[in-house]
Amino acid sequence: MSLHEFDLITWVQTRGLSREGDVGIGDDAAVWNLGDRQVLLATDLLMEGTHFTFPEAKPAQAGRKALAVNLSDIAAMGGLPRTALVSLVLPRCRGIEFGKEVMSGLLELAAEFDIAVLGGDTNIWDGPLVINVAVTGETTENGAILRSGALPGDAIYVTGPLGGSFSGHHLDFTPRVREALKLNELATINAMIDISDGLASDLRHVLKASGVGAILVEDAIPVSAAARAISGEKSPLEHALGDGEDFELLFTVSEANIEVVEHQTEVVVYRIGTMTADLGYSLLQTGAEVPVPVPELGWKHGF
Amino acid sequence: MSLHEFDLITWVQTRGLSREGDVGIGDDAAVWNLGDRQVLLATDLLMEGTHFTFPEAKPAQAGRKALAVNLSDIAAMGGLPRTALVSLVLPRCRGIEFGKEVMSGLLELAAEFDIAVLGGDTNIWDGPLVINVAVTGETTENGAILRSGALPGDAIYVTGPLGGSFSGHHLDFTPRVREALKLNELATINAMIDISDGLASDLRHVLKASGVGAILVEDAIPVSAAARAISGEKSPLEHALGDGEDFELLFTVSEANIEVVEHQTEVVVYRIGTMTADLGYSLLQTGAEVPVPVPELGWKHGF
Repeated sequence: MSLHEFDLITWVQTRGLSREGDVGIGDDAAVWNLGDRQVLLATDLLMEGTHFTFPEAKPAQAGRKALAVNLSDIAAMGGLPRTALVSLVLPRCRGIEFGKEVMSGLLELAAEFDIAVLGGDTNIWDGPLVINVAVTGETTENGAILRSGALPGDAIYVTGPLGGSFSGHHLDFTPRVREALKLNELATINAMIDISDGLASDLRHVLKASGVGAILVEDAIPVSAAARAISGEKSPLEHALGDGEDFELLFTVSEANIEVVEHQTEVVVYRIGTMTADLGYSLLQTGAEVPVPVPELGWKHGF
Repeated sequence: MSLHEFDLITWVQTRGLSREGDVGIGDDAAVWNLGDRQVLLATDLLMEGTHFTFPEAKPAQAGRKALAVNLSDIAAMGGLPRTALVSLVLPRCRGIEFGKEVMSGLLELAAEFDIAVLGGDTNIWDGPLVINVAVTGETTENGAILRSGALPGDAIYVTGPLGGSFSGHHLDFTPRVREALKLNELATINAMIDISDGLASDLRHVLKASGVGAILVEDAIPVSAAARAISGEKSPLEHALGDGEDFELLFTVSEANIEVVEHQTEVVVYRIGTMTADLGYSLLQTGAEVPVPVPELGWKHGF
C-alpha cells in the first residue's frame, strides 16, 4: 500500500455508491444492509513476490494466507465468517499439482473455520501466482464493530505480541475469529481493527475514524520474540509498532468493561494505552514523564 | 480456461464445503442460503493480455468489463445484483491517473445498475493490470435459476446475436440484468446460463447439469454482424458457436411458457432449438434432414 494507493481509495470513496445502512470503503470489511440482516463483505488480493515468496513459503501457505487475511477482516468487525470465493491466477510453469497445493492450504483453513468455499475463478498465465479471496460473514446481535466507535477514556488492547511477522508468522497466523466472537460476547467493544499495516498505523486509522487521540505506553506493548530476534537498525519496539501483518486484533472498551476483559481467561489481551479527547497520538516511553509523538510508521507492509 | 483448470475446479468441487441449501461451484453464481434469504455470490478475475489488451481497450473499458462479467453472472441466476468489491493490481509504470480511469469505467456501470461499490483492495506491481470483482445479488421470489433445471421438450432461447465478440463487443456489452429480471417475471424459466465460453460449450454445461440432450437448428441461431465480418477459416456459424464472451443469456422454458416468451416485446429472444430426453447434442444444418453432433467448440475463450 503506497500513498498513491490511498489517493485512489479516497477518490473512489468520494464517489460513494453505498446505500443507506451500508458501511462502505474505510473499515476492515464492508457492511451490506440486507433488510433485517447485516452481511459483512471483505476481499484481499495476494501476489507472489509481495505477500509471499517461493520457496520461503510453501504453496499451501500462500493459499492459507489468502483466506486467513480475509477471516481476520471479518473478525475485526466482530463477525462470523461464512463463505469464500477464490480467484486464482496460476503460473503456467508450475502445473496443476501446484494449484492443488495452494488450494489444499486454503481448504484446510476453511474447514477449520467452517467456511463454505462456494466458487471462484481460475486462470493460467506466464506471470507469478495471484490469489484473490472474497468472503462473506454474519454479524452477531451486537451488529458490526467499526473503527469509528472509540471514545475518550477507552482502554486500548491488542490480542498478541507484535512485530517481526515477516520472519514467518504472516504465513501461519491463526485469524482471531474465535477471540473476536468471545470478546464481543463478554464485553461491549467500542472499536476494533486487525493489525495488518502495523500497530502505529492501524491505531491511527481508528483515531481518525473515531475522532479521538491516544497515549500508548511503551512498557505495555507486547513485543514478539521474532521482533526481538531481528538485528538491524530498528529497535524491537519499532518493529512492533511498524512491521505489520501481525493479524492480531486491536480493540477498545470503556472503563466499565475493563474488568470483564481483563478477568476473562479465554482470550489473551494486553492493555497498551488509553484513548483521549485530545487528538494527539503519543507514546509514553520507558522512564519518561512526557509522551512523545508516535512516528509515521507502518504505512506500508514491510515485505 | 484450459482443460487443466477444469481438473482443478473438479478437484476443489469434490472437497465441497458447501452447507445445506447452498449452491456451490458449478453455476454462474453461488447461492448462499441465509435463513429466509438466498444471497447470490460471484467473482471474476480479469488480466491484461488475456481478457483485454491495451491500447485496443481503454482503461475505463477494462474496469467496466470487470464488473460487467460479474453482473452477467448474477443475471444468469435470474437475480438482482447489489454490491461489488474491487481488487486492483495496478502496473507501477502507468501511474495513479490510469487507476482512476479504470475505476471510472467500473463506477459508471455500477451507477447504471445501482450497484454499491463497498470496498476492495489496491496493490501496485511491475506486472500487468489485474482486476478482480466480487459481487453479491438477491434472488427474486422465484429463487435462483440454475443450469440444472432444463427439461426434455423445453424450448431453448438466446437473447442476442452471437460470435465475433473479440472484435469489440466484449468490451462494451450491456449485461442482461434487466432482461433476465423481466423474463423471470413473465415466465417460468427452467434453466439459464450466460454465454461466456461460447454457445456450444455453455449449452453443453446446461445439458450436463440437467441430464438432457438438445437439438439446435442452424437457421435459427442468430449470428452477429461481427461474426459475419470475420474472414478466415471458420464460418460465421462456427464463430457463433465457439467464440465466447457474447454475454447473452441462454435459457429454456417448457412449452406452456413459449407463448408468453415470444409475445412479450420487452426482451429480444431467439428460439434456437429444443431440449431432448435423448442425451445427444446435435445441430440440424440448413437443408439437412438428420442432425449432426455439435463439435467440441468454445472450451476456451478465443482471445
